[in-house]
Amino acid sequence: MKNEEVKQGIIFPFGQENVAYAEDFIGKSYLASLVNDPELNVGVSNVTFEPGCRNNWHQHHEGFQILLITGGEGWYQEFGQPARLLHPGDVVVVHNDVKHWHGATKDSWFSHLAITAGTPVWLEPVADEEYEKVEQGAE
Amino acid sequence: MKNEEVKQGIIFPFGQENVAYAEDFIGKSYLASLVNDPELNVGVSNVTFEPGCRNNWHQHHEGFQILLITGGEGWYQEFGQPARLLHPGDVVVVHNDVKHWHGATKDSWFSHLAITAGTPVWLEPVADEEYEKVEQGAE
Repeated sequence: MKNEEVKQGIIFPFGQENVAYAEDFIGKSYLASLVNDPELNVGVSNVTFEPGCRNNWHQHHEGFQILLITGGEGWYQEFGQPARLLHPGDVVVVHNDVKHWHGATKDSWFSHLAITAGTPVWLEPVADEEYEKVEQGAE
Repeated sequence: MKNEEVKQGIIFPFGQENVAYAEDFIGKSYLASLVNDPELNVGVSNVTFEPGCRNNWHQHHEGFQILLITGGEGWYQEFGQPARLLHPGDVVVVHNDVKHWHGATKDSWFSHLAITAGTPVWLEPVADEEYEKVEQGAE
């Protein structure tokens, strides 16, 4: 597997296995909360995905999400759009209610900072067939 | 000077010399805007300080700022409080209207991501004497 160094935490802590959201992911992810402050309308966390791990399709309702890619290689896809291959230094803005998923490529660890506002709405998984299509560049 | 690698940009772009805000800083800083989206209530930028560079005392009015330290060594100080020495992986939350400054240590480059909401209110510079006190641990 590529980019194993991501498991050491890229600048920010790797955190713990993300068991609270396990049912909203395929594969294992790891979460370190960096900012969780009731006075702010955003939270910040460091999210790491094992190879092949991705979250289910979801939306950020009455909010948004910003992804700042820090390690490895991953995917971001908005519903009905081609998937975008992500590397460190890339930035993704997810607007209010946009249906999307993100995760690692099949053979690489992946990490991003996530700046999140609003309420997540979890939808269906990214099925193996759907994910394979992205991996094969068929999207 | 220490941590010269910060000038290459730590994961995110180093950007350009921050001439627009030059009067609100002592020394040279560099700014790369990462997210500047009218649909969001926050912006994200990568800010780099040359050794000894610091911004003036300021506040974020009707907002906040989150600093995610990515490179080198720097200071954060809230008015009336001891300064906090910062290293990569450190996180600072600046609440609404809190008077503060941040910048590099005297002999190190320094970079952080800044997640900012609200309107900055720029106040007086951090005078050399004040900065030297922090450097000498007299604070």
